[in-house]
Amino acid sequence: MKTIGYAATSATQPLAPHDVTRRDLRDNDVAIEILYCGVCHSDLHQARNDWGASIYPLVPGHEIVGRVTATGSAVTRYKTGDRVAVGCIVDSCGKCDQCLKHEEQMCREGVTQTYNDHDRITGDVTYGGYSKHIVVREEFVLSIPEALDIARAAPLLCAGITTYSPLRTWNVGPGSRVGVVGLGGLGHMAVKLAVGLGAEVTVISRTEAKKADALALGADRVLASGDAEAMAAAVSSFDLIIDTIPVRHDLSPYLPLLDVDATLVIVGQLGMVDEHSTMPLLMGRRRISGSPIGGIAETQEMLNFCARMNILPECEMIAIQDINAAFERMERADVRYRFVIDMASLEAA
Amino acid sequence: MKTIGYAATSATQPLAPHDVTRRDLRDNDVAIEILYCGVCHSDLHQARNDWGASIYPLVPGHEIVGRVTATGSAVTRYKTGDRVAVGCIVDSCGKCDQCLKHEEQMCREGVTQTYNDHDRITGDVTYGGYSKHIVVREEFVLSIPEALDIARAAPLLCAGITTYSPLRTWNVGPGSRVGVVGLGGLGHMAVKLAVGLGAEVTVISRTEAKKADALALGADRVLASGDAEAMAAAVSSFDLIIDTIPVRHDLSPYLPLLDVDATLVIVGQLGMVDEHSTMPLLMGRRRISGSPIGGIAETQEMLNFCARMNILPECEMIAIQDINAAFERMERADVRYRFVIDMASLEAA
Repeated sequence: MKTIGYAATSATQPLAPHDVTRRDLRDNDVAIEILYCGVCHSDLHQARNDWGASIYPLVPGHEIVGRVTATGSAVTRYKTGDRVAVGCIVDSCGKCDQCLKHEEQMCREGVTQTYNDHDRITGDVTYGGYSKHIVVREEFVLSIPEALDIARAAPLLCAGITTYSPLRTWNVGPGSRVGVVGLGGLGHMAVKLAVGLGAEVTVISRTEAKKADALALGADRVLASGDAEAMAAAVSSFDLIIDTIPVRHDLSPYLPLLDVDATLVIVGQLGMVDEHSTMPLLMGRRRISGSPIGGIAETQEMLNFCARMNILPECEMIAIQDINAAFERMERADVRYRFVIDMASLEAA
Repeated sequence: MKTIGYAATSATQPLAPHDVTRRDLRDNDVAIEILYCGVCHSDLHQARNDWGASIYPLVPGHEIVGRVTATGSAVTRYKTGDRVAVGCIVDSCGKCDQCLKHEEQMCREGVTQTYNDHDRITGDVTYGGYSKHIVVREEFVLSIPEALDIARAAPLLCAGITTYSPLRTWNVGPGSRVGVVGLGGLGHMAVKLAVGLGAEVTVISRTEAKKADALALGADRVLASGDAEAMAAAVSSFDLIIDTIPVRHDLSPYLPLLDVDATLVIVGQLGMVDEHSTMPLLMGRRRISGSPIGGIAETQEMLNFCARMNILPECEMIAIQDINAAFERMERADVRYRFVIDMASLEAA
């Protein structure tokens, strides 16, 4: 199928319209008309080859929602017209211990990413959701519950599941004391989801400048990391801290805030963190971990949970023609809290 | 009670004979004649004020075994002649959540350390086991099972429990794949205890030079961290890695060796570790943690376990007059694997 998208053709070129060919439907494939696609910080990293592994032309986008337009002969879970979604992964081996326990994101053979990767069968490069259509293996297509506003659902597919999965891994529920560091695309979802799970939620921010925003998202309070007295009073007071800071930083201010056996889970920065002391780890058996997206079943669970609890990302809708300006604003953290591309704009291009 | 010990009188003075006064027995106190005392690397750090909090004169020693010589009126668990032990802590608040769940080492008010600390009642400085006698609150005195060789038991009180506790916290048992980094006082106990618990144990060392030593301790194999091919083959192959390296180092070589959700637990270095990447943490939900000694109940469990399984530290017995030379050898890692002071030598002094 011929379709159209926006692609980076090199690390230094702005995204521009680009013809995209989607594969003919295999028996287990679903063809989707993309209605909305969220803009993730990693889209910018990949477009600019910040991680050194970009394949050009590169069509970003892994927060995809749309409608089924056709299905392969063996597809049983979806039919034309269904509201569906696709996240960061579109295939995995399906046979390893991790896949078999529905943790496809940990596939021993490595997942197939929605874009900038290679199809497991043909080896063709995968292209993401900054596009009018996409074809995805049925098992990696999610269903969007009726109650979920499709125009705002897209960021759930990456920012949502990336913060939901650690909340579930570390058993957050009523009474849990959750800290969220950083209040961007990931952080604002961490707050909403943790509140939805019944936790007591604190946004940890340099100053109290974001207090009104944090409270509006449902947080119980803001802890200013620049306030030494407040930080000292908060020692050992969290069961889980979700660290969404997307750049290199120092974990040291946050580790003492964890209670005995509690965990700081990194979901933002993919790369180096600063040197740090082992003291808070040894003294409280505190833990540092990380977490990547989630499995397909957990992603569906998250979508269902958001529908039931009416949890939606805060989105700023843009036309695809504005994507390069959006990238620049995202670099300045000038978005509350996630850009979503209205793919209807692509027809006008 | 007047007794004698060896003390550092400043950060730069060698240890020398020193008169020590032990408190009169309180109702719940046990008086102990010390027969043997292990030499822990932290004794050297404290004697030299490496952590900046030493109080002089300083009598080190927190791997203490001996015999009860007298008991307070309310003591019920011990009687004169009993073989007993004292580890790193001699008191805690007894009322907080951590104390109530038998994790005194995590006491919210802070523990009272066996030496270089202050008694909770009088505020007097505590003096450790490089001494002929000690007086300790009954609840912090351990029983040495009959089957345990008292001349070799001392290092269990710090090196033993420090490695046993994380093995238990992270549920090591038959089939567990345990890596041990560093093969000194802590490392050699980690190997013996993990083997005793039924785990498959790998010593991770720069080269294969320690292979014979590792196998002699019961390890199944040695993984040379300098062998890139072997390290690549070992990715995701451990459930728990116990990192006993006692100095600043880089965790990066070890993190990818952890399987999904597995933990590297630091028990050696109290201080900084190098900068590291979050990639292995995010990609496998791997964890970094730390662990300090254990609670009193767990320490007793460890002593009973060692008696049942005939697990004993490898000791080099010294006279207390040799302590300064032993410190120097310990600094060069020239000991297999723990010095133990035969306190009979103190009478001859």
